[in-house]
Amino acid sequence: MTAVPNAFDDPAYRQGVIDLLGLLAYGEISACERLAEDAKLAPELATKVEVAAMATAEFHHFEQLRDRLVELQVDPFEAMRPFVSTFERFHRQTQPSTFLEGVVKAYVGDGLAADFYREIAAFLDADTRELVLSTLSGTGHSEFVVDVIRQAIADDPKVGGRLALWARRLMGEALSHAQAVVAERDALTAVLVGSVDRPGSGMDLAMIGRMLTRLTEAHTARMEKLGLAA
Amino acid sequence: MTAVPNAFDDPAYRQGVIDLLGLLAYGEISACERLAEDAKLAPELATKVEVAAMATAEFHHFEQLRDRLVELQVDPFEAMRPFVSTFERFHRQTQPSTFLEGVVKAYVGDGLAADFYREIAAFLDADTRELVLSTLSGTGHSEFVVDVIRQAIADDPKVGGRLALWARRLMGEALSHAQAVVAERDALTAVLVGSVDRPGSGMDLAMIGRMLTRLTEAHTARMEKLGLAA
Repeated sequence: MTAVPNAFDDPAYRQGVIDLLGLLAYGEISACERLAEDAKLAPELATKVEVAAMATAEFHHFEQLRDRLVELQVDPFEAMRPFVSTFERFHRQTQPSTFLEGVVKAYVGDGLAADFYREIAAFLDADTRELVLSTLSGTGHSEFVVDVIRQAIADDPKVGGRLALWARRLMGEALSHAQAVVAERDALTAVLVGSVDRPGSGMDLAMIGRMLTRLTEAHTARMEKLGLAA
Repeated sequence: MTAVPNAFDDPAYRQGVIDLLGLLAYGEISACERLAEDAKLAPELATKVEVAAMATAEFHHFEQLRDRLVELQVDPFEAMRPFVSTFERFHRQTQPSTFLEGVVKAYVGDGLAADFYREIAAFLDADTRELVLSTLSGTGHSEFVVDVIRQAIADDPKVGGRLALWARRLMGEALSHAQAVVAERDALTAVLVGSVDRPGSGMDLAMIGRMLTRLTEAHTARMEKLGLAA
């Protein structure tokens, strides 16, 4: 019997995937926590339940990612640790001051995360890819936001301008924090960007540029759906 | 064909079950909300995740109860409305001031709810009984609390005395708020206590007394498990 070549035999790839799973896991649990906080600001019980449903979905994504880290014989909390400060900084700098800001943040974050998951899936081994795709957000849990925001703008058109500015700030903060992660975590970057040892295994700079363009275009389309100028 | 006699043909029974489902549903969603808040006080990420897992379980219980209300062609938010103020008052009067108080409240509440669900199940039609039993708390999600509290008492024995007082207050508040619900909601009470129209269908006062004794004994046993004097 010859062993099937396994992507995880490459220690750099293995470390990169552990980083990626740790990053996604902490992203999900911290999003879950913030959503639970936003739910408190909900003006009515029905909306509060919608926000709690999103938080619950994030928690289940977290569980799947954590369980995979455990399968890889990694302490999931150790794997998440390098990303804690970046996410906490991001959340501190984008603390919603109203319920509407909270749901716009949830909608923008959920959509951006789903797009990013789909983009990176292509560069992963089959098992990791399947896991990442199955923890995709955007499973419809955030669709109620469209109604909430469109109604709020109909009630008071000034709200639209303020929320459009807020969404633009969120996107800027998200990109700059993503940039900070990429700059700090070589192993993670190597999985996405490819490395000297594995030519053609990841994205080159032109591909990253095109990915950013796609992410930004999808963000713009989401803003239009909410009735906000991007 | 003769129609199968259906408990729901009795409008008083139907209203009682709607009340009960509304009560349990609001209990679950408000517990979920409070747990999410307590999670913020967790001293470390692993404990935060345990609390979030409990909150998520409560949310799924809520979903099951809400879905049954929808099946019964009732607006679930209308069915919950009569119980909102009682739960909110209870939660306001038992606001934890530390993480340890929060998890003791979760453990006490979870255990008490599970015992109460088991007690009332006997008086319900088969479908409702199955639903109520399947939304039982105490599915092990709160077991981590035992370790957390025993460790805290080991570190500082004074903590034990304070938490024992706290748990006693919680039980007192829970019973007095339960009493208020029973006094206000005739239809609900009729399902549990039986009524003139359906003799032998529910509990008599002696049975209620025995139920309270069982609930209190189970509470005492849980306190011992935590290492607290009941």
